[in-house]
Amino acid sequence: MEFKTWLNSKIKITEKHLDIYLPLKDNRQKAIYESMRYSLFAGGKRIRPVLMMETFNMFNDNENSIMPFACAIEMIHTYSLIHDDLPAMDDDDFRRGKSTNHKVYGDALAILAGDGLLNKAFETVLNNISTIAIPAEKILKSLEILSNSSGTEGMIGGQVTDMFVEERNLEYLEYMHKLKTGALIKAACEIGATAGGATEEEISKLSDYAHYLGLAFQVKDDILDFTADEEELGKPIGSDEKNDKLTYVTLLGLEKSQEILEDYTDKAVSSLEIFGERAERLREIAEYLLKRKN
Amino acid sequence: MEFKTWLNSKIKITEKHLDIYLPLKDNRQKAIYESMRYSLFAGGKRIRPVLMMETFNMFNDNENSIMPFACAIEMIHTYSLIHDDLPAMDDDDFRRGKSTNHKVYGDALAILAGDGLLNKAFETVLNNISTIAIPAEKILKSLEILSNSSGTEGMIGGQVTDMFVEERNLEYLEYMHKLKTGALIKAACEIGATAGGATEEEISKLSDYAHYLGLAFQVKDDILDFTADEEELGKPIGSDEKNDKLTYVTLLGLEKSQEILEDYTDKAVSSLEIFGERAERLREIAEYLLKRKN
Repeated sequence: MEFKTWLNSKIKITEKHLDIYLPLKDNRQKAIYESMRYSLFAGGKRIRPVLMMETFNMFNDNENSIMPFACAIEMIHTYSLIHDDLPAMDDDDFRRGKSTNHKVYGDALAILAGDGLLNKAFETVLNNISTIAIPAEKILKSLEILSNSSGTEGMIGGQVTDMFVEERNLEYLEYMHKLKTGALIKAACEIGATAGGATEEEISKLSDYAHYLGLAFQVKDDILDFTADEEELGKPIGSDEKNDKLTYVTLLGLEKSQEILEDYTDKAVSSLEIFGERAERLREIAEYLLKRKN
Repeated sequence: MEFKTWLNSKIKITEKHLDIYLPLKDNRQKAIYESMRYSLFAGGKRIRPVLMMETFNMFNDNENSIMPFACAIEMIHTYSLIHDDLPAMDDDDFRRGKSTNHKVYGDALAILAGDGLLNKAFETVLNNISTIAIPAEKILKSLEILSNSSGTEGMIGGQVTDMFVEERNLEYLEYMHKLKTGALIKAACEIGATAGGATEEEISKLSDYAHYLGLAFQVKDDILDFTADEEELGKPIGSDEKNDKLTYVTLLGLEKSQEILEDYTDKAVSSLEIFGERAERLREIAEYLLKRKN
């Protein structure tokens, strides 16, 4: 199957399950379900669930078993965007070509919708244990990886170091991104492999792949903020420079950033050697992220 | 042991473990650890952990096994207070006699500290599985109860119905409090009993106890907002009336609210009959909450 066709089929499966796990409810809390679903279905590359499904599928073909985790990680990613966009944080009006959550629902509901999505991530796994055909100990291990990756030593910690930048150098920048973007991408692959039944060595190689992929992802984001077509990107470009953000491009310039992007992508792909043909989709994902336009 | 001595010993054990599970870290995210710990150690009755420890102890004397859950539920309660106090929500400056989190650390860090505490609740359980001497299936069941009680059909849902009140009647008020305050108090008792190894009937009776205790707790809160000594309460009184909040007192008046409080307390205590002497501490807790001054 051609890569784009394959990718779209995985995205479709993810979105079908997101809709199953977080349906609109017509009760007195209806407003928060609308707000949560507004951001959850506002597009997005679904890269974390796709990575998790594929690393799982390399070892286990019962894809239904990983769907609660795949949707949970997408909910966590989505909540982080809602909270990051708040006036008290980055104060962004647009995301993926649509108004941000608080512009539509107000700050109070946007805060609660973010809380609700983080909470719902854990509910989604825990309320669907009966559909997850892996041992309870592996479910607990996968939940542990998930919770650590999204916490203060992971994604939330990354947001703290981004909000309160203390040093403007490459070491600080990579520390920040390892937490802010890297942690969840790494967790996606580690959970997929762990739940799928990979060996320690296999998990470690996939973790390396995800580490470099996560860094490459962020370099690309920084480059796009300077070079993208605004309509294709779905939000105003040039905001990093305007807001004096610490990014690869503001620190090192475009040319050097492009070099780093290609180097990280190479390193990600090199980590996959032991898997041979089985890792072909993961290589294609790295290539796709390298060349993406939004 | 006299009740107050016993209660204080349980509070001390809780706070010792909170300190172990959420130490101050001297890394680049130090600010968020300070902010999280500021609110986590700002006092509080620790009623949820105490209820969980006691319902667990009725069936199982290995108290260490329940401490990750007991601290997790207190972290969730604390995060909800931080977010509720934000300017976009209730906009409160004082809580328990101290400045609220965002008044000390700013809105951005208060939002992140709340997110961090919710996330840390799950991390606390999942990173300490080896200290929990109960089967993996029961750990998963307890996590499920915890996550559902704090979600959009529980505590967060309660906050939504409180922020956007649609009807001013007793039925709506009790729906709101069942979610906002009741869900977490009920979860405390259900998790304690489930993890401890209680039978279905025992869990059900303790759940009834917690249901009425949770409602009584909220009626008492509403009464205190009208009658408490400001210094003892640690925040300004009369704010419910000023903000035109839907509460038992604003809806039904003080006298009727006091009647309801006593009725719910009676119902809570009646649910404990089958346990005889073993539920003595739970009866004392109901009595203590009935008479509290803050």
